[in-house]
Amino acid sequence: MDTIFESMNKPSLYTVLSPALLHLYDVNNTLVVVIDVLRATSTIATDLYNGAKEVIPVDSVQRCIQLGKELACVTAGERDGQIAPGLQYGNSSFEYPREFIEGKTLVLTTTNGTRLLHMALSKGATEIVTGSFLNLSAVCDHLKEVNKNVILACAGWKDRVNMEDTMFAGAVVSMVEEYFTINCDSSRIAETLYKKGRTDMYEFMKKNDASHYHRLTNFGLERDIRHCLTADLANVLPEYVNGKLLLRR
Amino acid sequence: MDTIFESMNKPSLYTVLSPALLHLYDVNNTLVVVIDVLRATSTIATDLYNGAKEVIPVDSVQRCIQLGKELACVTAGERDGQIAPGLQYGNSSFEYPREFIEGKTLVLTTTNGTRLLHMALSKGATEIVTGSFLNLSAVCDHLKEVNKNVILACAGWKDRVNMEDTMFAGAVVSMVEEYFTINCDSSRIAETLYKKGRTDMYEFMKKNDASHYHRLTNFGLERDIRHCLTADLANVLPEYVNGKLLLRR
Repeated sequence: MDTIFESMNKPSLYTVLSPALLHLYDVNNTLVVVIDVLRATSTIATDLYNGAKEVIPVDSVQRCIQLGKELACVTAGERDGQIAPGLQYGNSSFEYPREFIEGKTLVLTTTNGTRLLHMALSKGATEIVTGSFLNLSAVCDHLKEVNKNVILACAGWKDRVNMEDTMFAGAVVSMVEEYFTINCDSSRIAETLYKKGRTDMYEFMKKNDASHYHRLTNFGLERDIRHCLTADLANVLPEYVNGKLLLRR
Repeated sequence: MDTIFESMNKPSLYTVLSPALLHLYDVNNTLVVVIDVLRATSTIATDLYNGAKEVIPVDSVQRCIQLGKELACVTAGERDGQIAPGLQYGNSSFEYPREFIEGKTLVLTTTNGTRLLHMALSKGATEIVTGSFLNLSAVCDHLKEVNKNVILACAGWKDRVNMEDTMFAGAVVSMVEEYFTINCDSSRIAETLYKKGRTDMYEFMKKNDASHYHRLTNFGLERDIRHCLTADLANVLPEYVNGKLLLRR
């Protein structure tokens, strides 16, 4: 078997640990997985899993309020762990059960994730999906099928690398690596982190003083963290199309 | 014992995984450890350990040739694994035994490392030293004594995160963590990587397809990689003072 030939025919996979590093990679014609585990992309997966019509990500509270009025839809977003003034709901998956969100449009303000979506789009990504542990298998299944170059793009926190987004990228790498050529140290670093932490990611984050563990715990959101670190609880694939996140069919 | 009070009195430590992320951190009044394991900061440690008078890092071959003429000193640098045209020596520690380099000035061109040194300086670092596994203990001993905020700055490769610089940062974190307040996911990611790889870092890099493992192996430099991953073979502390790297006394 000619493994070199095989390897050359596989699409590439790269992990980008911060939005501030995205410019180093060729985004053109790639599939970009936007990752913001705590909590934007977890909430997005939950909303669509529970039947929301669509989620419109915006980058400011002001824009969220404005669109909420124009579209007469649900608005959501937090600042410092509280529902932002002028908005109706927060960033917790628990706020969006099917009884509430089914059939509705949600406008969600998320600073790190939305900016990254727009960056990926402006750099020529042909397909953008969102990833979180809640929809880990849906993301991996799609990546295995799609035969495209892939970028796993971590939103991080204000451009700093964070633990949970890196772990999620590592989880994906560990599950799809046979299908890709991976010449990317960041991917292997992420994979090593995930394999070390996977048996209890909550405890791993706690033990390692992860910044978002502390930040969200200070807001009393331990339950949210645990939920967002659980695989496949909202196993759908949100796809970004014309400014909206929709269930990919 | 008041651990919160204790923690507040400790200086901070951050790891910056790529020069493209340095702007996110407050470099002012910090001690910056510049890390470029394969091979700039390994060669620098070796040169000074073997008695070189000083190492002048420059960012281009042209500038290296020019300074070499002006100062009538040894010039060194590689491009694509070969001694760069117009220069005399390469980036391998093995080229600089004491018999050759003692008492001499070396001008070394190193793209990633030199740029990072200049960035740290321009952002107000009060002290800049260079780190590599060859001088791991010297770096850690200094950090334990100095009682300053510290940034471990990885040079990476053309701003991409790389495995060996991240592992070195992780080694430092694991050895000095009691002396610092570390609210930094990158530091914990680096530490996890190091702890996973430390029993045989060469094999770990090989197994994980590290980009520099492949790059240097293609140039026939396996021996250099193994050497640069060995602790304390040139255990001195190079300090950057007025454009020159000198032995810190």
